[in-house]
Amino acid sequence: MEPAVRGRRGSTELRPLLSGERGAQFGASASSPSALAVAAVLPAGGCGERMGVATPKQFCRVLGRPLISHTLQALERVCWIKDIVVVVTGENMETMKSIIQKYQHKGISLVEAGATRHRSIFNGLKALAGDQAYCRLSRPEVVIIHDAVRPFFEEDDLLKVVRAAREHGAAGATRPLVSTVISPSTEGCLDHSLERARYRASEMPQAFLFDVIYEAYQQCSGYDLEFGTECLQLALKYCHANAKLVEGSPDLWKVTYKRDLYAAESIIKERISQKICIVMDMKEEKEHAGYLLETVLKNELNHVKVTSVVPCHDGSNIQHIILEQCYSFVCMNVMTTDFQNTQKLLGMLEESNLSVLYPVVVVSVHFLDFELGPLSQKMESLMWIRKFAVEVKKRNILLCGLIINYSQDEQKLQESLRQGAVIIAALIKERNSALLGQLLVA
Amino acid sequence: MEPAVRGRRGSTELRPLLSGERGAQFGASASSPSALAVAAVLPAGGCGERMGVATPKQFCRVLGRPLISHTLQALERVCWIKDIVVVVTGENMETMKSIIQKYQHKGISLVEAGATRHRSIFNGLKALAGDQAYCRLSRPEVVIIHDAVRPFFEEDDLLKVVRAAREHGAAGATRPLVSTVISPSTEGCLDHSLERARYRASEMPQAFLFDVIYEAYQQCSGYDLEFGTECLQLALKYCHANAKLVEGSPDLWKVTYKRDLYAAESIIKERISQKICIVMDMKEEKEHAGYLLETVLKNELNHVKVTSVVPCHDGSNIQHIILEQCYSFVCMNVMTTDFQNTQKLLGMLEESNLSVLYPVVVVSVHFLDFELGPLSQKMESLMWIRKFAVEVKKRNILLCGLIINYSQDEQKLQESLRQGAVIIAALIKERNSALLGQLLVA
Repeated sequence: MEPAVRGRRGSTELRPLLSGERGAQFGASASSPSALAVAAVLPAGGCGERMGVATPKQFCRVLGRPLISHTLQALERVCWIKDIVVVVTGENMETMKSIIQKYQHKGISLVEAGATRHRSIFNGLKALAGDQAYCRLSRPEVVIIHDAVRPFFEEDDLLKVVRAAREHGAAGATRPLVSTVISPSTEGCLDHSLERARYRASEMPQAFLFDVIYEAYQQCSGYDLEFGTECLQLALKYCHANAKLVEGSPDLWKVTYKRDLYAAESIIKERISQKICIVMDMKEEKEHAGYLLETVLKNELNHVKVTSVVPCHDGSNIQHIILEQCYSFVCMNVMTTDFQNTQKLLGMLEESNLSVLYPVVVVSVHFLDFELGPLSQKMESLMWIRKFAVEVKKRNILLCGLIINYSQDEQKLQESLRQGAVIIAALIKERNSALLGQLLVA
Repeated sequence: MEPAVRGRRGSTELRPLLSGERGAQFGASASSPSALAVAAVLPAGGCGERMGVATPKQFCRVLGRPLISHTLQALERVCWIKDIVVVVTGENMETMKSIIQKYQHKGISLVEAGATRHRSIFNGLKALAGDQAYCRLSRPEVVIIHDAVRPFFEEDDLLKVVRAAREHGAAGATRPLVSTVISPSTEGCLDHSLERARYRASEMPQAFLFDVIYEAYQQCSGYDLEFGTECLQLALKYCHANAKLVEGSPDLWKVTYKRDLYAAESIIKERISQKICIVMDMKEEKEHAGYLLETVLKNELNHVKVTSVVPCHDGSNIQHIILEQCYSFVCMNVMTTDFQNTQKLLGMLEESNLSVLYPVVVVSVHFLDFELGPLSQKMESLMWIRKFAVEVKKRNILLCGLIINYSQDEQKLQESLRQGAVIIAALIKERNSALLGQLLVA
């Protein structure tokens, strides 16, 4: 269970997060704890034709999980969003329901998409308007409109547009143009090019006072609903809301092409590999073996936070680390034939829900002096890793073994530790299930 | 040595490639074999501030090699481009020289960049103008302007703009807009949004009659040189050349952000992993072992071309495959203790220049009945792989071992073959040097 998710939707109190500069301007509604209701609409009705694949891009898998689930996860982290309305086509309704169930998303309402993006958003807004008898949702003060295919945003990105929307009625994130924009003539030649510095790319998220954007959609023409692409423009045209443009972070980009899926997967892999926990062996005789590896890992892996922990009797300190969403574990075992430490960790990981969202990597490390006996005989006893790996794979846990040469020769030991660190880094970075159950030698 | 590169710059005969539809219109110059001289200017003076890293993006490494080298490689494949002028800042001149030397690029001229993109391109054009006494380059009829940070284009993309430039004086690739473009007011609010369908993103490559674009740069104002971003606009404004807009492929995108580097690396990995060659063991007693693996690989790896070859006496058929730029080899060895086949292949790979541009993966496969003796003892004899792998790594060859359970039990055999195929696919796809010298078990 993700702690940030537990208990969300319970509190709708945005005030502390929006405190300070604009608190006073918000008036009575903001000073009442539960008054500032914020909801989000996530249009996900696109067919992803630009992706060049049959699956709509919001359902394409990134690290084994549909892209839209990554976006929902990011929205769910924000505890002051009360309702999330996902707009999907009728034919994808069941797919969406099973995604919500499998990845344990909470507080999501599903609404059927229209034929265009604007019609889909309008359907989402109708569900929030509170004027339909069958609908359990209540009308929010502010609504965020985001994209199912933009999974990378922080709470701060949402806060910025929500704050600006409360002041201006409408607000949206923008980014500098990457390419020069040109206007073609009817003959397919250059008519003119735009001065790049004077224009911006309109990105998501956007936020609106609910009454403003709902009114705009109700007023807007059939042509706009059919061919328009810009919600801010509707708010301006039909409600004279001067949409505030907010500088967005580069991470707000939209997954559009197949290459964007590659990029998204790499970014997510990088993010969940930022923390490594080394679980020390309580019975450690060769006392400093684990600490030596810790030192080398810290040197070899810049930008990664390496921590170590000696499991306490009830394992509560390991559980604490699991709750903090660490997805990469290095588990020390003093004897090559002793797997208790790894087994204990795997048990705790299986009990937790940590691996529902991302594959968890566990590297079971065994120290062994290569010169004190044939490597092969000791390796035999480690073949259990293969069997165990197949078991835990069912829970999205990727187990590998790693033997480090605990040589008396200091230079050989250091070389093996360094090599081990490189292997650990690769296993954690790639999270490739093809390698599970392998016994690697450093 | 890349065959497509050998002998390039020798022929400047574009005519056969441009034949047909427009051959007659080209007039006398086109009918003379060497008359249609095409050159390319590659501005590479940017500092890559949007990347968020210290290294300018054109020098960032993609699969171990600077991005600009990938772009140069793509240009070099096109035999009818006579000269390539790369424009770099003075401080990166030595870096660029060493890249050209290390990756064996041919026919490249280096020119120093100006303070802006337009000034840099102008410097590149001056070097091609043929009016400078010291310069060995001759004035081309058509000049292609491309970006150092757009490595993904095909010969056809260049042909399209060159053809159009000959007809219209100027031409450039464009793509649909991904985001809506908006114009901000001076207060940072939305002034208006552009109708997305009526605008295009201007991409590269572009092509020009040399005289047109050179004249345009000579005439153009200091303001244009300082703040302009669009070469097509200069050709229109100063030479009244009606630049033809050509639909570009989605691959023409510009590497701008760090995520684009991730995407570029994934795309290149995918491209060089499209072909796998299985090198059979001539002495094969268990005759069909290699063919069984071939069948399973073909089933498991869709979209990958799997071929097999039994090495002939002088190895010329293997050399032929190397010349065809296959970067992934699976090498069968009948006995676990017999590495002759793998050793022979490694020797040939080392002699070739194949691994100069990309890491070459070699998986040394050994069949072994797990039930006919302890796995560990046989594995001992395979530890040579570790030693050998370190040797060939110096030549950018990544060697791994793989044991397949040659069980009498048909089901176990098939399971092991399938597992082996998954491991081979992962090794080839990831090309991760951290795993070299490992002995994996399927």
